[in-house]
Amino acid sequence: MTNPRLIVGVDIGGTKVVVGTVPEDGSTVFGLQQVPTRVADGADAVVGQVTRLVANSLEATKTTLGVKQLDVIGVGIGAPGPMDIARGMVLMSPNLGWRDFPLRDRVSEEVGLPAALDNDANCAVFGEWWMGAARGAHTVIGLTIGTGIGGGFVLGGDIYHGASDIAGEFGHMSIDSTGRRCKCGNYGCLEAYASGTAIASRAIEGIEAGAETRLPAYVGDHLEAITAQVVYEAARDGDDYALEVIKDTAHFLGAGVANLVNIFNPEIVVILGGVTAAGDRLFAPLRAEVTRRAFRPAVQSCRIVPGELPGTAGVFGAVAAFKVQTTGSV
Amino acid sequence: MTNPRLIVGVDIGGTKVVVGTVPEDGSTVFGLQQVPTRVADGADAVVGQVTRLVANSLEATKTTLGVKQLDVIGVGIGAPGPMDIARGMVLMSPNLGWRDFPLRDRVSEEVGLPAALDNDANCAVFGEWWMGAARGAHTVIGLTIGTGIGGGFVLGGDIYHGASDIAGEFGHMSIDSTGRRCKCGNYGCLEAYASGTAIASRAIEGIEAGAETRLPAYVGDHLEAITAQVVYEAARDGDDYALEVIKDTAHFLGAGVANLVNIFNPEIVVILGGVTAAGDRLFAPLRAEVTRRAFRPAVQSCRIVPGELPGTAGVFGAVAAFKVQTTGSV
Repeated sequence: MTNPRLIVGVDIGGTKVVVGTVPEDGSTVFGLQQVPTRVADGADAVVGQVTRLVANSLEATKTTLGVKQLDVIGVGIGAPGPMDIARGMVLMSPNLGWRDFPLRDRVSEEVGLPAALDNDANCAVFGEWWMGAARGAHTVIGLTIGTGIGGGFVLGGDIYHGASDIAGEFGHMSIDSTGRRCKCGNYGCLEAYASGTAIASRAIEGIEAGAETRLPAYVGDHLEAITAQVVYEAARDGDDYALEVIKDTAHFLGAGVANLVNIFNPEIVVILGGVTAAGDRLFAPLRAEVTRRAFRPAVQSCRIVPGELPGTAGVFGAVAAFKVQTTGSV
Repeated sequence: MTNPRLIVGVDIGGTKVVVGTVPEDGSTVFGLQQVPTRVADGADAVVGQVTRLVANSLEATKTTLGVKQLDVIGVGIGAPGPMDIARGMVLMSPNLGWRDFPLRDRVSEEVGLPAALDNDANCAVFGEWWMGAARGAHTVIGLTIGTGIGGGFVLGGDIYHGASDIAGEFGHMSIDSTGRRCKCGNYGCLEAYASGTAIASRAIEGIEAGAETRLPAYVGDHLEAITAQVVYEAARDGDDYALEVIKDTAHFLGAGVANLVNIFNPEIVVILGGVTAAGDRLFAPLRAEVTRRAFRPAVQSCRIVPGELPGTAGVFGAVAAFKVQTTGSV
């Protein structure tokens, strides 16, 4: 096997840090590493985690490739924002508790390689454009649905950042301007209805209101232990109430996606994150809701699909972001 | 005076057709012409109107410039969509009742000049970017508020069209997914609350419900004659109820603009159309509502302003669209 030029991708989330080593052409990922994020110990501790995971990933890559030396050209990092991409700074991260932290340069110093920084949701969507479900598309809208809802807009092979690197906050699009207060301060944000957290909350609220369901049995009757994943599991097992919770999610998500379809007229909408585990139980009513709401010619030219790189989209996207920031294209 | 190269701009709306002749550098507009659109007489009649107005505008331009010959290089046309821009076709226009009409080529034949076609709202926003309130901005969001609400996204000096030339339907972003049915089939669209039509409807509904106001006196007690313009006039005269209707408009519009600010993180949001007549009575509460709802760093990097080319933004934008379509840039 020849010795390819490699870029390390780092995906820093509020829950876990994922690191992998990717050949320049994006053909695969070597030495995938994952640990829970040490949020409570602060930014320096997380930089320490990243440094160790990068070293571990490169070691594992050597073993896989059967070589003693690697040709590593840099590190791409995805992290929660808002951020200043040109300066490589995380300006403020509610999930990590960071403020004005020079993440790019700190990682670069520790690892001894050039580095690039972009928003984590942007990276995930960019990864799906580069090597996943949205390959080759000119206009891509992506939604990352986990604890919250993030998003990204990939246009002509580059991430659209907006005037101050905030663009793509699709989770904080209000779909009910007098609705639920969102933790961002707005009312009725998509995130407040369709995030993993919101799916679990709605499931629990319904049970407390007397819904008939076997969901409590999945968590030893500890309702607070119900997560979105538990809801999908019960739905797979045929629980009608869990199916209803997913159908409601599809309706909320459909209102949001229909807005994005009318606004961007994208070729493809990629849905990322744990929610894709619900499969067609989610995607069939989601597509129907978007069709019901959005302009027909815009719906006709748009596919709505799950991501194809679960767990690694952010790593691939961080690598692609490094390439764009250092060479101008992927 | 030297004889500049000229482009004719044509703005076809459901209410009126406006035509003007613009020097290549966009420095001014000559021979502005305007007539009510002969919607009922069909597409050919409107092409006839356009042909006559172009001739009249060019005659008037000769007089103004004091020359016998003009150097006219083409015609830019803005018209309501959806459309196929590459083929110069209006695919479907609910307001005009057209279907699959080859507007660009029909006008080009009649006028004997090369022509280009784009969406009317796109053109208006593009005009404001080229020569109006959004000059020089890299990321521009525009909303045209009249009978309905249209929109456009100008990025890096070009109109963003999306996968099938439908992008920018900001009026059909749902801000209340279980709200008022919109004529597009969706529920709770921004247009259903904040268009000129909706402003008048809300004003009338309130009066019928017993609001104290002098508004009926403006229309000889014929409530159905109340238009948005009448509401602005009464507000200028200090009518508290009319002011309240405008403040409500600012709240609805603010929810929509906040969404666009979170989604696009634009440098500038330009509001176009009759609604700008309400002035700071609208813009002060609008800016406050956006500040309350959208992400702070996105709000801080965004100006929200009225258009500076009332009545001619669409003409300038159609000219700019002609330049982009024929030469690749403005």
